[in-house]
Amino acid sequence: MKKAVQMAEMTVGQTSPNPSVGCVIVNNGEVVGTGVHLKAGGPHAERHALSMAGELAEGADAYVTLEPCSHTGRTPPCAEALIEAGVKRVFTASDDPDPRVSGRGIQMLRDAGIEVVTNVLKGEADELNRFFFHYIHTQRPYVTLKMATSIDGKTATASGESQWITGPESREDGHRLRRTHDAILTGINTVETDDPSLTVRLPEGGMQPLRVVLDTTLRFPEQARLLQDGGGVRIFTTEQAPADKVTRLREKGASVTVLPSFRIDVPDVLDMLGSEQVQSLLVEGGASIHDSFLRSGLFEQVVHYSAPILIGGEKAPGAAGGSGTASLSGAPRLHRHDVTVLGNDLRIIYRRKEEQ
Amino acid sequence: MKKAVQMAEMTVGQTSPNPSVGCVIVNNGEVVGTGVHLKAGGPHAERHALSMAGELAEGADAYVTLEPCSHTGRTPPCAEALIEAGVKRVFTASDDPDPRVSGRGIQMLRDAGIEVVTNVLKGEADELNRFFFHYIHTQRPYVTLKMATSIDGKTATASGESQWITGPESREDGHRLRRTHDAILTGINTVETDDPSLTVRLPEGGMQPLRVVLDTTLRFPEQARLLQDGGGVRIFTTEQAPADKVTRLREKGASVTVLPSFRIDVPDVLDMLGSEQVQSLLVEGGASIHDSFLRSGLFEQVVHYSAPILIGGEKAPGAAGGSGTASLSGAPRLHRHDVTVLGNDLRIIYRRKEEQ
Repeated sequence: MKKAVQMAEMTVGQTSPNPSVGCVIVNNGEVVGTGVHLKAGGPHAERHALSMAGELAEGADAYVTLEPCSHTGRTPPCAEALIEAGVKRVFTASDDPDPRVSGRGIQMLRDAGIEVVTNVLKGEADELNRFFFHYIHTQRPYVTLKMATSIDGKTATASGESQWITGPESREDGHRLRRTHDAILTGINTVETDDPSLTVRLPEGGMQPLRVVLDTTLRFPEQARLLQDGGGVRIFTTEQAPADKVTRLREKGASVTVLPSFRIDVPDVLDMLGSEQVQSLLVEGGASIHDSFLRSGLFEQVVHYSAPILIGGEKAPGAAGGSGTASLSGAPRLHRHDVTVLGNDLRIIYRRKEEQ
Repeated sequence: MKKAVQMAEMTVGQTSPNPSVGCVIVNNGEVVGTGVHLKAGGPHAERHALSMAGELAEGADAYVTLEPCSHTGRTPPCAEALIEAGVKRVFTASDDPDPRVSGRGIQMLRDAGIEVVTNVLKGEADELNRFFFHYIHTQRPYVTLKMATSIDGKTATASGESQWITGPESREDGHRLRRTHDAILTGINTVETDDPSLTVRLPEGGMQPLRVVLDTTLRFPEQARLLQDGGGVRIFTTEQAPADKVTRLREKGASVTVLPSFRIDVPDVLDMLGSEQVQSLLVEGGASIHDSFLRSGLFEQVVHYSAPILIGGEKAPGAAGGSGTASLSGAPRLHRHDVTVLGNDLRIIYRRKEEQ
């Protein structure tokens, strides 16, 4: 199962809206088939592994990181395929929370006389697909807040200088973080100040996430890099947006959503992105965007890159601005999930307490 | 030598203005004497170890964490004592930077025909006495900035709530940090807001550091806890201080220094504390005190307690306020010396680059 999980790990970020799944088939102590689910619409991990195993699947053990599906989606049910191939035992890690499966896959196997052992390395497998599980349960994307700050929590000097606080190792890791998410969100302040491209720039390439900008009054600059590079941009705005500006931005290729309101509420944005099967959202905001998510309480993870530098300055922007949390007891409590050294910086990953 | 360093470690924070020193005497593979320097004015480590060893010191090896002294201070020179006792070899770790010693101790031993091996575990021994070494070189205290913040660098909510951001393990560690320093410094804002006692409160007790407050206009509250508990307080103020307030505070037992200026400059404060043999200073300021030290560049270490909480808020105070550093290239660059988990919090110790 360890190998099956490691195989699934390779595909994190490329299977959305499907989960990452790995499968290993073992006959008489020898691996006879391996498979991963590569991308939505393609064959499931079990199919790849079974076709590699061929006749050797008969009487073999199958290790699958997720309960095999029992329904016909874009591909026929894998539970059926395992039965037909004549496997003897099936070991599973995560349960499939998809209401169309949820235990039925395992039941189908057992009904066919196959011995099924569940929850093998469940923790590791669940971790891999936490975006997917969160999405299936809430119908909203899993939200990661990314912060890159000095020791004293500043994201720029008082004069606005921000390039670069963190080192090259952190910035490269930030691109990996982008690649694992379906969408990246930022605020209009960041677009105006930094003119970011919000793309994944890694030597090994990778899928480009959807780029989302929150822009209450539609100040979006028509010369912004986000409009020039052909990568597409999704803008959320409000009834404060000038109608002609909406039209012009759409003509330039932007997808503009005018919310029927005078302000942008985080839950509405997450609902809309969820309805478009965005399962994970990386928020790379400035202080006010982070403050909105912080106060809405709608985030699951914080990835903090901390550089060994002190900036100071009351007016220097911090990681989260706005009005902030009113009281300490009301502030979202997190737990530290991981601490990693990246060059001179530290990367600290926090998760919401409820998620433990 | 490892044992000698470990013994010296026990006395860190209690020997000032003297360094922490450990000594182990080994005869024929057996430890025959051990000693540490307990406090200024008392016998040096070598004396304790020699008197424990008695006649067994003859022909033995002595391991000393610091070059034995060659001058008569409050006690006669240790190099002489080692020679008289007839030790065969001496191993040393740190060199004594005291201009009255600085190589003369080792020379004295060699002149007497004793074999001397220097720089044994020098790194570990130097670390123990870095306050002492810094002070001897600069005549100013070694400055540690202490910060206790949320992930986003806040020390309180916008409404001023600050108790408690960090957990009990961090707060207890903060008291240990106090105990290792000769003095603690804070600003008048902190005195007015928190009315702190700035004492070491640990089950095992410990020496109380000198308490120092920077107070440009002498707003010092006459009912402050710092005046009531009999522990003494040192106040630095300026010509902006009302003369009658200076008199009243002195009558209440405060030691008030009126600087001949209209503002308090960090270098002046450090010079004065240095002239009073304060070898180490823990700065537990609010945002503006930290900003003063940050901009003066006069600090050697930052101890950052980081709690897994997000506070946000533009108006919520951060670890360093004031005007801050003007440019990223001018910001003091540090290196990460240590990361330790304290309950839910992280303690990260940074040192100045020059110190590496």
